[in-house]
Amino acid sequence: MSSEPPPLLALDLTGTFAFGLNGALTAVRAARLDMVGVIVLGMMTALGGGVLRDVLLDSLPPATLRDWRYYTLAAAGGLIAFALSKHLHRLETPITILDAVGLSAFAVIGAGKALDAGLAPAPAILLGVLTAVGGGTLRDTLVRRIPSVLSSGLYAVPALVGAALTVLAVRAGVYGLPAALGAAVTCFLIRMLGLRFRLNAPAPPETSGRREPPHEGT
Amino acid sequence: MSSEPPPLLALDLTGTFAFGLNGALTAVRAARLDMVGVIVLGMMTALGGGVLRDVLLDSLPPATLRDWRYYTLAAAGGLIAFALSKHLHRLETPITILDAVGLSAFAVIGAGKALDAGLAPAPAILLGVLTAVGGGTLRDTLVRRIPSVLSSGLYAVPALVGAALTVLAVRAGVYGLPAALGAAVTCFLIRMLGLRFRLNAPAPPETSGRREPPHEGT
Amino acid sequence: MSSEPPPLLALDLTGTFAFGLNGALTAVRAARLDMVGVIVLGMMTALGGGVLRDVLLDSLPPATLRDWRYYTLAAAGGLIAFALSKHLHRLETPITILDAVGLSAFAVIGAGKALDAGLAPAPAILLGVLTAVGGGTLRDTLVRRIPSVLSSGLYAVPALVGAALTVLAVRAGVYGLPAALGAAVTCFLIRMLGLRFRLNAPAPPETSGRREPPHEGT
Repeated sequence: MSSEPPPLLALDLTGTFAFGLNGALTAVRAARLDMVGVIVLGMMTALGGGVLRDVLLDSLPPATLRDWRYYTLAAAGGLIAFALSKHLHRLETPITILDAVGLSAFAVIGAGKALDAGLAPAPAILLGVLTAVGGGTLRDTLVRRIPSVLSSGLYAVPALVGAALTVLAVRAGVYGLPAALGAAVTCFLIRMLGLRFRLNAPAPPETSGRREPPHEGT
Repeated sequence: MSSEPPPLLALDLTGTFAFGLNGALTAVRAARLDMVGVIVLGMMTALGGGVLRDVLLDSLPPATLRDWRYYTLAAAGGLIAFALSKHLHRLETPITILDAVGLSAFAVIGAGKALDAGLAPAPAILLGVLTAVGGGTLRDTLVRRIPSVLSSGLYAVPALVGAALTVLAVRAGVYGLPAALGAAVTCFLIRMLGLRFRLNAPAPPETSGRREPPHEGT
Repeated sequence: MSSEPPPLLALDLTGTFAFGLNGALTAVRAARLDMVGVIVLGMMTALGGGVLRDVLLDSLPPATLRDWRYYTLAAAGGLIAFALSKHLHRLETPITILDAVGLSAFAVIGAGKALDAGLAPAPAILLGVLTAVGGGTLRDTLVRRIPSVLSSGLYAVPALVGAALTVLAVRAGVYGLPAALGAAVTCFLIRMLGLRFRLNAPAPPETSGRREPPHEGT
C-alpha cells in the first residue's frame, strides 16, 4: 500500500484512472485494436510510468502491481473506454482535465520518491518527468506514433516544472502536503494553459515555422 | 539454473527455442535485416518476456541470462532461422505449434514465479501474460509492426487463461505438475483453436466489421 | 561515482557526451521535434545503454543517474546539438569518431561490469553489446526508425568484438587497463573500417543483393 498522504494519493489514483481511460481512448483512435489491445494499452499508459520509476529506484515489485487500487483503476479506465468508445468524444474536456491531474500527481510523487531513494536533485527531476510521461510514451511507441513527449513540448515541460518545484521544496526543508499540492497545481495550470493556447517549446532553428499544432490530450 | 520440474522446464526450453526461431523468421519477413539483426531479434523474442518478468520481480540478473540453456537455445533458434530462412516456410505448421508451446509454458511459469515473489492473483496473472507476450512485443516494436498482442486478440487471451488457471490452482492448494501442465495445455488448445478458426477478441463498437484477419504465428 | 580507471572513465564520459550530441542530432534530422524532444532523445541515447545494463545487473539506481558527470554531459550534448543543429553537419566527421569512441568504451565497460556481477562469458558479452547499442536503439524506436543495430551490421559487430575481447582477457587473467584499452581500440577500428568501406554483416540468402547502404553515424 502507498504511504502518500491521502490528498496526494487521491490525485495519484485519479490520475491512474484518467491515464487508463485516456490511454485506451487514444488507442482506439490511433489503431484498430480489439478489446484486449485497448485494455492492454490503457493499463500500460496508466501503470507504465510508475513501473519504470520503481524499476530504476529498485523498489520492486512495482507499487502499481503491489497496491490493488492502481491496477484495478487502470483496468477499469481501459474497460470503460472500450465500452463507451463511441460516446467518449463528448467527454473530451473532462478527460483532458483528469489527464492533466494525473500528469501533475505522477511528476510530484515520482520526484519525491526519487529523492527518498537517495538520488540527487537533477536525476530526481528526471525521474519525476519519466514517471509522468513514461506510460504515454510506451503507448505511443506500441501504436507507432511519435511520442507526445517528443513532439508536443508542453507535455514534458509542466511535468518538469512540477518535479523541479518538488525537489526545491524538499531541499528548502519546506516539503509537505501544501508544497506538494502547490507543485502539482502549478504543473496542472501550465499544462492547461499550454493546451488552451497551443503553446510549444522552441523548435530547432532550421525547422522554425514548420511545426505542426500540438496534439490535444495525452 | 532453473528449479522448475523437468517436464515444465522442457516445455520452457522448447518454447525458448521456438520463440528464437519464429522471432527471427518474422524478422526476416518483416524487414530486410542482416545476420546480426536477425539473430538479435530472435534472441530478443525468446528471452525478452522472461527478462521483463525477472526485472519486475527483482530476480536479477534474469534467469534467462544466468542459465546457459536459455540463451544458447535462443541463439540457436535465431541462427537456424537465418541459415534456413529460404526453406522455413515449409515448416510453418510445426513452428507455429512449437510457438504455442512456448506461449503456454511462459504464461504458466511466469504466473507461478510472480506468486512465489508475493504478488496478489491479479498482478500475477498480468506477469504471466507479460512473460508470454513480452518478447514478441519487443520484436514487433523494433521492426515497426503493431504488436500481435494488440492487434490479434487470441494471442493474449490464451496466455491470460493459462496464467489465470495457474493462479487458481495455487490458490486452491492443488498446484503441482499436473495442474501446471493442465493450465499449459488449455492455453495451447485455445491458441491453436484461435489460429484454426481465425478467432478474435471483440472489437470496439465503432470499428466492427473493419477488422483485418489475425496474423498467423507469433 | 564510477570506479573505472581514469583513462577508461575518460573514454566513457567522452562517449556519453558524443552519444548525447549524435543522438540529438539524429533526432533533429529524423523527426521534427522541439527543444524538449531533442534533449530527451539526446539524453536517452547517451544514458539508455548504461541504464539497461544496470537494471539487468541489479545495480540500481543506475550509475548514469548516480554520477552527476554522466547525466550532465548527456544533457550538454543534447543542448549543444539543439543550439547548433544548423551547423553541426560540418562537424560530422569528428562526431562520428567520438561516437565510435563511445561505442567502444560502452562495450568494454559493460562486459566488464557484467563479469563483475557474476555473469558467465556469453551473457557478459551480450550485456556489453546491449550497453553499447541500447541507447541508440531506444532513440531509433521512439522516432520510428528501424534501429541501426538491426539494419546496419557493423554497428553491433564491433561492439561484440570489443566485449568478447574484454571477456577473453578477464578469463585469461590478463585483464587490466592495457587489455581494456586494447579491446576498445579494436572495437573502434572495426567500426571506423566498417564506416569507411560500408561493410555489412551477411544478409539472409533470399534477400541478397537488396541491401540498402548502411547509415552513417549512430
